[in-house]
Amino acid sequence: MSRFYDEIREQPEVAARLLEESRTAIEAFGARFREAHPKGFVIAARGSSDHAALYAKYLFGRRHRSLVALAAPSLFTRYSSPPSLEGQCVIGISQSGESPDVIAVVEEAVRQGAMTVAITNEAESRLAATSELVLPLHAGSERSVPASKTYTASLLALALMSQAIDPDEQFGAALNRVPMSITDALEAEEKLAPLAPALAGPRAIVLGRGFNFSTAEEVALKLTETSYVLARAWSVADFEHGPIAVVGFPVLLVGGGGSVEADLESIAARLVDSGCRVIGVFDCSSAPRGLEAAAVHDSGLPEELTPLTLAVLGQLLAWRVALARGVDPDRPRALRKITRTW
Amino acid sequence: MSRFYDEIREQPEVAARLLEESRTAIEAFGARFREAHPKGFVIAARGSSDHAALYAKYLFGRRHRSLVALAAPSLFTRYSSPPSLEGQCVIGISQSGESPDVIAVVEEAVRQGAMTVAITNEAESRLAATSELVLPLHAGSERSVPASKTYTASLLALALMSQAIDPDEQFGAALNRVPMSITDALEAEEKLAPLAPALAGPRAIVLGRGFNFSTAEEVALKLTETSYVLARAWSVADFEHGPIAVVGFPVLLVGGGGSVEADLESIAARLVDSGCRVIGVFDCSSAPRGLEAAAVHDSGLPEELTPLTLAVLGQLLAWRVALARGVDPDRPRALRKITRTW
Repeated sequence: MSRFYDEIREQPEVAARLLEESRTAIEAFGARFREAHPKGFVIAARGSSDHAALYAKYLFGRRHRSLVALAAPSLFTRYSSPPSLEGQCVIGISQSGESPDVIAVVEEAVRQGAMTVAITNEAESRLAATSELVLPLHAGSERSVPASKTYTASLLALALMSQAIDPDEQFGAALNRVPMSITDALEAEEKLAPLAPALAGPRAIVLGRGFNFSTAEEVALKLTETSYVLARAWSVADFEHGPIAVVGFPVLLVGGGGSVEADLESIAARLVDSGCRVIGVFDCSSAPRGLEAAAVHDSGLPEELTPLTLAVLGQLLAWRVALARGVDPDRPRALRKITRTW
Repeated sequence: MSRFYDEIREQPEVAARLLEESRTAIEAFGARFREAHPKGFVIAARGSSDHAALYAKYLFGRRHRSLVALAAPSLFTRYSSPPSLEGQCVIGISQSGESPDVIAVVEEAVRQGAMTVAITNEAESRLAATSELVLPLHAGSERSVPASKTYTASLLALALMSQAIDPDEQFGAALNRVPMSITDALEAEEKLAPLAPALAGPRAIVLGRGFNFSTAEEVALKLTETSYVLARAWSVADFEHGPIAVVGFPVLLVGGGGSVEADLESIAARLVDSGCRVIGVFDCSSAPRGLEAAAVHDSGLPEELTPLTLAVLGQLLAWRVALARGVDPDRPRALRKITRTW
């Protein structure tokens, strides 16, 4: 059918394989982490992987009370003023493992004696060779330019790292349910059909908060990459600080229930009241009232893991919007798969 | 003429006043900083102030080799899992000083015994009352909804803090030239006229890198808030990792010369080659070749301070685009000046 669509459909298998094949690497990470006892995390990533880093900011903050800083690679590569990384756990996320600016951050971390971890789909890559520890994603070759399976595999790898740091029986059981939950999400594809028309225009806004702010960023990027809809994500809170002035564009809400459910309901009510087209995709028991269309798929996963199922639903949505707009998501206009930015 | 335009024009005076009236507060900050010797920075901010925080990430990284983490307020307010802030210098930036989520981060920092600083235009606000140290912006009442003078005042306050941490004669002299440089930027307004037509459509992309990535974000927000052009900023490096697929939208480059000048030239060449409409605003000696239109204003400031002059040029550009689109930038459709997000 298409590489992008095929790779979206591979995700249950990819997640199951990662759970199975990453055990040794995850155990080694946990042991090293307890030994190094880092005081915080620094994550270097670009593109979709940067959204996985944003997910980690909430996950490690919530589960370990850890401060997570997203690296500014140009400080390392352009300004030759890398910040001190002493005592940090420095993680590089890159599906190809060849992103030079991510490698530069990890190289500097090694130079400074910090603990380093590569999350990559290419266990033989330069990023992997540079890092002390490697968590291979085992996702198989990703041939579509817009990332899908390597994105959810990166989220799952981060969640497994979190479980290795602070093991919890319930969280562990939920992790094991991820492949099945992704299968269920794929089977819910038809629920997305009513959402596509609102995204047919040239502009859209995607809103999330907390754990699914990262999902909102990722879904916006998928819509932009696959359909040439200029989609812009905001956290609900930042959106209320200014950009809400632009209501009038269609707004897609992304929600996983939990602690921020009331925020999504409140922004939905405000946008619907102002006559805005509001649609949403949710992994929780119900959608806010008054939306033009909502796809509700309740995976039963805790809010912390709903970014996995919601990313899958977002990929399927981007795929449908691309088809509706007559765009081939396998052939974006000007993109190369490995981007060599320094 | 309009509140927004009037407040843009006040900025030389605001900068001069801040340089003069903040001396005691800046000295107190410097003394306390040397005493506390924080190992890094955590900054909480929303909206435009969050772009000032992004500027600080580069400024403090470059000048002090400090790691700067932008706080995720929902960890404090929604998930009740604030990260450990021990040994950090925690800065809250809010023009009104009443943004509840920024206050929540600073309150938690006080509880944890961290050094706290408020950067605010309201010295009697709750944020100021909560923080150990206060740097009032002395910008006078900001009545326009899109921030202008409080944004550049926040950048200047951060630069003065940086100078207090690591004094440098040349940087100090450049700081003193900021009011005059802003006056010169205001006088260059007519250079922006040729840029407006490319921004008349419903979508635009704004690109910067390094120090002026924050400016790109701020200019994109100004365009969106004042003109309902959905503008989306990316760092040049992130843009090449995927969103470049969307070339076809007009692209506005924002550059301050210096260490990233070649990156701007290279992306400009790639976009011009692909037939994209590319315009730019620059504070350096020349613009990349082949642009549809470029406003070049060379303030002579070091790259680290060009975000001040470029923000002013970006505000003027947003104002002109709003006028051209028949929008009143003083009355955004659904915005309140103080946004009480938790």
